[in-house]
Amino acid sequence: MAMTDEQYMQQALAEAQKAFDREEVPVGAIIVMNNRIIARAHNQVEMLNDSTAHAEILALTTAFNFLGSKYLPDATLYVTVEPCLMCSGALYWSKIGKIVYGTDDEKNGYRKCCGNKNPYHPKTKLVSGILKEECAGLMKDFFKARR
Amino acid sequence: MAMTDEQYMQQALAEAQKAFDREEVPVGAIIVMNNRIIARAHNQVEMLNDSTAHAEILALTTAFNFLGSKYLPDATLYVTVEPCLMCSGALYWSKIGKIVYGTDDEKNGYRKCCGNKNPYHPKTKLVSGILKEECAGLMKDFFKARR
Repeated sequence: MAMTDEQYMQQALAEAQKAFDREEVPVGAIIVMNNRIIARAHNQVEMLNDSTAHAEILALTTAFNFLGSKYLPDATLYVTVEPCLMCSGALYWSKIGKIVYGTDDEKNGYRKCCGNKNPYHPKTKLVSGILKEECAGLMKDFFKARR
Repeated sequence: MAMTDEQYMQQALAEAQKAFDREEVPVGAIIVMNNRIIARAHNQVEMLNDSTAHAEILALTTAFNFLGSKYLPDATLYVTVEPCLMCSGALYWSKIGKIVYGTDDEKNGYRKCCGNKNPYHPKTKLVSGILKEECAGLMKDFFKARR
């Protein structure tokens, strides 16, 4: 059964909450194909001791392995926060069909370097602002607690 | 014993040659710390069926695991080709001390999106053009054979 972007983003938020509970920067991502969630991941930089273990990267690797394919033209990534430059580059290589993100990230989002240039594959659709307040709220709570 | 940038780039080129021999886009990378090579990797996109399995990413992961650290401020990455956006973002997060690359990549290099904006950590030094001809030659031979 098809779910709405908001419903899928709730699933990404549930992943972000897991990160929050484990004292990781609270970003969560899922990948959906044919109305099915084929990957779920949250930021694991601290746990894996790997500064590149972002939710999007972990979700992409899971999806590649699951599908046995290195491209994801029929899949959609839902991620709670605007992807960084690294994750945007990874999404470019994946040729993913659609990217939906929640809140902007002025500090580390891809637009900091790319400006108005689109770093994604020309066929990739981009949607932002889904459950924006909830996605941003989790980040604010996390960093507030650490200041 | 300290080696020169050219000597280390030869080691990255040897990795690129391995990729070439395995019908992967011939990019190789090594990471050096205290005059010691702590990671060697070549592009494995085809073998791992993962469009993000670039030499730089694989070398970074190896270095993080080897050192048990998610940051590499005292390390240098040698890579035969200008890093793409994804790899540049990953290098940013790693806070690597120095990046040395061989040949420019007009099609996929980070400057395509970033222009003159520096995507790396402010403390990261950047050197390019080391063994440029050799690094570019391997790429040209690879793509010529496939046209």
